[in-house]
Amino acid sequence: VRRTTGGNYRKFWSFRVLDSRNKKFPIGSNVYALVGWRSHTVLNPEDFAKNNLFVLPDFGGLPISLGIGYLGMPGVAAYFGFLEICKPKAGETVVVTTAAGSVGSLVGQIAKIKGCKVIGFTGSDEKCRWLEDELGFDKAINYKVGKLAKALKAVAPDGVDCFFDNCGGELSSIIINQMNFYGRIALCGAVAEYNNESEAKLRSTHTTFILKQLSLEGFVVYRWADRWQEGIKEIKEMILEGKVKYRETIFDGFEILPEAFIDVLEGKNFGKAVIKV
Amino acid sequence: VRRTTGGNYRKFWSFRVLDSRNKKFPIGSNVYALVGWRSHTVLNPEDFAKNNLFVLPDFGGLPISLGIGYLGMPGVAAYFGFLEICKPKAGETVVVTTAAGSVGSLVGQIAKIKGCKVIGFTGSDEKCRWLEDELGFDKAINYKVGKLAKALKAVAPDGVDCFFDNCGGELSSIIINQMNFYGRIALCGAVAEYNNESEAKLRSTHTTFILKQLSLEGFVVYRWADRWQEGIKEIKEMILEGKVKYRETIFDGFEILPEAFIDVLEGKNFGKAVIKV
Repeated sequence: VRRTTGGNYRKFWSFRVLDSRNKKFPIGSNVYALVGWRSHTVLNPEDFAKNNLFVLPDFGGLPISLGIGYLGMPGVAAYFGFLEICKPKAGETVVVTTAAGSVGSLVGQIAKIKGCKVIGFTGSDEKCRWLEDELGFDKAINYKVGKLAKALKAVAPDGVDCFFDNCGGELSSIIINQMNFYGRIALCGAVAEYNNESEAKLRSTHTTFILKQLSLEGFVVYRWADRWQEGIKEIKEMILEGKVKYRETIFDGFEILPEAFIDVLEGKNFGKAVIKV
Repeated sequence: VRRTTGGNYRKFWSFRVLDSRNKKFPIGSNVYALVGWRSHTVLNPEDFAKNNLFVLPDFGGLPISLGIGYLGMPGVAAYFGFLEICKPKAGETVVVTTAAGSVGSLVGQIAKIKGCKVIGFTGSDEKCRWLEDELGFDKAINYKVGKLAKALKAVAPDGVDCFFDNCGGELSSIIINQMNFYGRIALCGAVAEYNNESEAKLRSTHTTFILKQLSLEGFVVYRWADRWQEGIKEIKEMILEGKVKYRETIFDGFEILPEAFIDVLEGKNFGKAVIKV
């Protein structure tokens, strides 16, 4: 087995099978595998849990790198996490954090397909322009500019109904405090807290949760293990129909991996960060 | 209309009708009304929303004061809030905060009826004894003693499945961080935050919510307006069958009201605080 396209810090990879003694993994097929950072590997499929190794379905001509992006774990997280937990309805206002990442950028586009108004928070003006001009977000806000409560109120004067949170930290509290009655929050990631988890002290949103009767649910994507292929198929069709656009930040060469990893944590990438070898 | 039994700081009262020109509110009947602190009042039923004024159902010989306790708003909050949001299953471990109050003490008893292990947090050793010895809680913890994470771990070594939270603040975070996969949290009140809402800064539980896939929902009891009488009927039967015990802290005389109010906020009362005139 030789890796042809690799993933980010989460150690997911799309591999092409170079040699095989297992009929379920034929030579030439592409597989998704959770194996850590490496250029080539020898695998015994029996050593893997169900969702850590599987043959990628036909991508209809789309690049295999999407197997670790919109057509892999991030895509499934966006699709089910948003639809199943946020339960968006047409006309509602949706807020997404880390909106220019591989999960957030897909959540926002799915929300537009569902007829929602979509507001994204991201970390640069360039990313804001990409979200608004190319992906169709109604508004993108650069969270580094400050006065975020005021900025959100200006673009969502009627409040927020759905919140897909990849971020955590103070930004989450600001958004939660502008939610409407019976608002739904999906917790997917905690980028803002990865580096200071033990110290983060936040303003309480407890009273808001009660008075607005908000619901919140954290999730890990493998909850939908049984519906994995269904999610990928749905997203693939959205892409092939032109309703969803993807973008990847490609890093070329195995030796660039540490730099790519740091870029991810610093929020420099657009869409999914991919290491290509 | 003359009040015979009154409620706490939330301004709910049980009144006896002394005179009436409305057939729906006959003389001698008992009514529940959200009217503020007063000894007598004249009401036009049309001025009230559905759940702010209604004739109390037959209590089967139980005292009318329960109309503002287990057979009123707190009872309905405990019954539906716990069963509908926490969705307890037999054998699970349930934690309740402000466990000796009119909501918490009923939640704990309903949890025991459902076959759960029940742990309550309250503010004195005397209340702990009441919860354990009379109400059947498996364990009650005096939150003023400190080392709460360790104390909870000792009595719930396998983690917490359901958390009915009346409290908020740091105690909530401690409990949430000991919850099991797919744990459910109902937010009912925020006693710990009533006096310092603007300043409360809490350790983030964001990452725990994701990794444990917890769900949380805040509620206001009027959500179950359409099932109000159903809730009261169920609780009344639990009391009449001897499965649920109630206790009230009675304050006698209208002039004692400010003192009673302060006692509630200081956590001195057992069960529902009632002003009797």
